[in-house]
Amino acid sequence: MLIFHDIAEIREFVRQARGKGHSIGLVPTMGYLHEGHLSLMRQAKKQCDTVIISIFVNPTQFGPGEDLASYPRDLDRDAAMAEGVGVDAVFNPAAAEIYPPGYSTYIDVERITEKLCGASRPGHFRGVATVVAKLFNIVKPDYAFFGQKDAQQVLVIKRMAADLNMEVEVVTVPTVREPNGLAMSSRNVYLEPDQRQAALILSSSLNRAAAAVRSGERDAAKIRQLVIDLIKAEPLAEIDYVEIYSHPDLEPVEVIKGPALLALAVKMGRARLIDNIIL
Amino acid sequence: MLIFHDIAEIREFVRQARGKGHSIGLVPTMGYLHEGHLSLMRQAKKQCDTVIISIFVNPTQFGPGEDLASYPRDLDRDAAMAEGVGVDAVFNPAAAEIYPPGYSTYIDVERITEKLCGASRPGHFRGVATVVAKLFNIVKPDYAFFGQKDAQQVLVIKRMAADLNMEVEVVTVPTVREPNGLAMSSRNVYLEPDQRQAALILSSSLNRAAAAVRSGERDAAKIRQLVIDLIKAEPLAEIDYVEIYSHPDLEPVEVIKGPALLALAVKMGRARLIDNIIL
Repeated sequence: MLIFHDIAEIREFVRQARGKGHSIGLVPTMGYLHEGHLSLMRQAKKQCDTVIISIFVNPTQFGPGEDLASYPRDLDRDAAMAEGVGVDAVFNPAAAEIYPPGYSTYIDVERITEKLCGASRPGHFRGVATVVAKLFNIVKPDYAFFGQKDAQQVLVIKRMAADLNMEVEVVTVPTVREPNGLAMSSRNVYLEPDQRQAALILSSSLNRAAAAVRSGERDAAKIRQLVIDLIKAEPLAEIDYVEIYSHPDLEPVEVIKGPALLALAVKMGRARLIDNIIL
Repeated sequence: MLIFHDIAEIREFVRQARGKGHSIGLVPTMGYLHEGHLSLMRQAKKQCDTVIISIFVNPTQFGPGEDLASYPRDLDRDAAMAEGVGVDAVFNPAAAEIYPPGYSTYIDVERITEKLCGASRPGHFRGVATVVAKLFNIVKPDYAFFGQKDAQQVLVIKRMAADLNMEVEVVTVPTVREPNGLAMSSRNVYLEPDQRQAALILSSSLNRAAAAVRSGERDAAKIRQLVIDLIKAEPLAEIDYVEIYSHPDLEPVEVIKGPALLALAVKMGRARLIDNIIL
């Protein structure tokens, strides 16, 4: 497995792979890899001849006061994990390689970014869309792989790729969970043992909501309140949002008829955790 | 020469040209072609094996109250002119092909869009950057050609292409003028005979400013005032802006040392005309 830091180098690597007739898969990450990332890479290996992952803690998707400085980083560990699942190359650029002096261009996906994490983290999806567009233009993958854990991010990337006529197929891969249900996240490292236990309320409340829908409940407000009540009963948890929107358009929903996204964000000590389920 | 209205068709045309090993040149236009456009196409023919022009009056770059509805259109005339200079294909999409229902993604180039036409026409360069990014992604040209008449537009496109890691070389082609100096523009059709005569003040005042610089004047404020006074002496002309900025960074300039852009916009009846010169 090769590790590249420069855009020109990864482009040359892609050019050579293309020369062999290879299809290219890209897994954009911020590193500190976990089983969720590995699941994306395994899926990429299944679909593509050459798999590239990017490891870049993207400063433009962090707001003031967020955890950019403390975001966990460990390139050696990440590289070993990526190599273990057969990744062909890692693109690990410095911030100045991606945002050189004078950098001025940003991509806004409107409407679907106004709610959920977009409302809690102003500018977050602008940073995400911008860096992913750049990675797409640098690597020019046939397929790019994103996790359903970041449900809104997937929708934003799909919307951007379609709107800007990018010829990449965005593949959504299911959330990977620990055996107790906690969704894998690099930010789980922030959790103290008692918080880690308390964090199970995220997935368990989503499951309770899904069970309610299976039992015939269709009133979105009631389902949302069920989740809110469950999380509020957990003293270590502080709700950022619990919302239900239509999927994938993220329109308000009163009565659940078609696919609906139940998404939540919860602060738990230093960590802000997100999770979701499609009802 | 072929005319395509659908994205899938022009993509297939490009794919076939690529299959022959052709380099691809793109000339994005809003149609109602004039000698300035033809000059772009001739330059494209010199540099590229296959030349495509787009003709699309892009609604997102017009503000409220601007001339979107009345912007001159004549596809048959345009097609004949393009064919006359050897263009291989015209891409002439409907607005709904470019902006289908639910369209949500826009590209902002910050800083250099805050002044000149960007200040006079809020949202204009957002629309320009967005549609050009889409055209680049649809056609994937090796070279794209833009006129120096729209000096700020060229800088915005170059900035965007570099920032978003687009692999297209943006080529700037000199402004084409009528024998009397008037810069070619599709909007010149709006001019009544007396206004057309009065419009000569744009290029003549720019030339007077250049002569002053050649004579040793370096004070940007004095040069700017010279141009303002000349235009104000023309009763049919109403100044939108007259500005001098460093080129290509568009930073404020007090003393002209390096390349500087003297740019102006003037209202003349129904027409808003722009022109510029590099000092």
